[in-house]
Amino acid sequence: MAAVSLIGLEGLPLVQPGDDLAALLTDALERAGLQLTDGDVLVVAQKIVSKAEGRLRRLTDVVPSPRAVELAGIVRKDPRLVEVVLSESRDVIRAVPNVLIIEHRLGFVMANAGVDQSNVGGDEEVALLLPEDPDGSCRRLREALERRHGVRIAVVMNDSFGRPWRNGVTGVCIGASGLPILLDRRGAPDLFGRALLITEVAVGDEVAAAASMVMGQAGEGIPAVLVRGLRIDGREQPALALIRSRQYDLFR
Amino acid sequence: MAAVSLIGLEGLPLVQPGDDLAALLTDALERAGLQLTDGDVLVVAQKIVSKAEGRLRRLTDVVPSPRAVELAGIVRKDPRLVEVVLSESRDVIRAVPNVLIIEHRLGFVMANAGVDQSNVGGDEEVALLLPEDPDGSCRRLREALERRHGVRIAVVMNDSFGRPWRNGVTGVCIGASGLPILLDRRGAPDLFGRALLITEVAVGDEVAAAASMVMGQAGEGIPAVLVRGLRIDGREQPALALIRSRQYDLFR
Repeated sequence: MAAVSLIGLEGLPLVQPGDDLAALLTDALERAGLQLTDGDVLVVAQKIVSKAEGRLRRLTDVVPSPRAVELAGIVRKDPRLVEVVLSESRDVIRAVPNVLIIEHRLGFVMANAGVDQSNVGGDEEVALLLPEDPDGSCRRLREALERRHGVRIAVVMNDSFGRPWRNGVTGVCIGASGLPILLDRRGAPDLFGRALLITEVAVGDEVAAAASMVMGQAGEGIPAVLVRGLRIDGREQPALALIRSRQYDLFR
Repeated sequence: MAAVSLIGLEGLPLVQPGDDLAALLTDALERAGLQLTDGDVLVVAQKIVSKAEGRLRRLTDVVPSPRAVELAGIVRKDPRLVEVVLSESRDVIRAVPNVLIIEHRLGFVMANAGVDQSNVGGDEEVALLLPEDPDGSCRRLREALERRHGVRIAVVMNDSFGRPWRNGVTGVCIGASGLPILLDRRGAPDLFGRALLITEVAVGDEVAAAASMVMGQAGEGIPAVLVRGLRIDGREQPALALIRSRQYDLFR
């Protein structure tokens, strides 16, 4: 029977810059009576990784450029926040009132470059940025957890993205280590031996969305989800493999 | 502890037009030793619902219009298939070689109007369309299962959509009954009491993606997934609530 468990890890302390996430997650697993085993996938929310890595920017230290001031007028946001967003971006995709969609320096097309003012510690003047290298963060966390627990696991980092055509945000994969996140099914026969027309499945985003579904059950109180029982064959890929290259994109 | 189980239902027979899906799913649940309980969410793949509803079109019966012939030349597909796609569409969003993205008559922006030639019975000349009314299909299936089992459940129908900017397809919700699928979190305080900037969460799509992740583990052999342990408060909405209205869409 194909069965997958999604177990939310609650009760993590508020993460501070410099915190050892592997240690905090190990404590949370122990409190939940769980032991990591081979094949587990641990999904962590971007926010706790960013906080642990100190990816905070004090808005009082930010001097907005003329371009940020102009853009802030269009999107009706704080010019200092827009300056931080631009510092994390390599292109502006859409800018209309209340909406600023950019291409993040790593290639993600997303709102506000993932820069977030909520839940960063009660200080309205602080912005939280995406990790410098989310795939690298996942790899380091995976290696630290594997050393501690003597197991082989995967780590996925998720964030919530909006998307065209559909309302609401969903969890997406912005970092990964140890998991094939984009399955190539080109040529795989279907039940009748006919070659499938679907080319690739973004399993990494499906894992991220599944974890987000559990994280959302307790407001913001579940920053990590253990995914157990997932069997995916293939070679490991970074989350950057999920980004469509410009030449194949019809919507920029 | 917030824990959700995703249990793939295997061993369903090949679904034929007129089949009673509630009966087939009940058999599959029994074979798996599972009993439906209040709060369960059953996710069914669009294909088995379309097949049960006889949403098949023999391509040999289709005479393509001049417009379908012209479009088929651009997208390099069978003009009869393009004719079927157009009959299910109300707008063409993008048409380039190998890619035909349309607005489905129900509002979904998707490739090929969901019309599929794979896995419909070994006959290359048959196309499978989306159900006439996926939300209605889910409601009827939910009611039939609730009557049989004396429980209160939800039913979600998923399909695989591509999306801009990111590679690969993911499971999305195209039908729903009994579940709040779009959670409005406007004004909900975060951990520090600060109003969240994120407005809505597309839980229906996250549920659909989670189920798709399990369905994908056995090729095409898992057409339904039981989601157990999900707790979502809110009022029931149809999948059509996930479709962004044109005036708020920046990418058409």
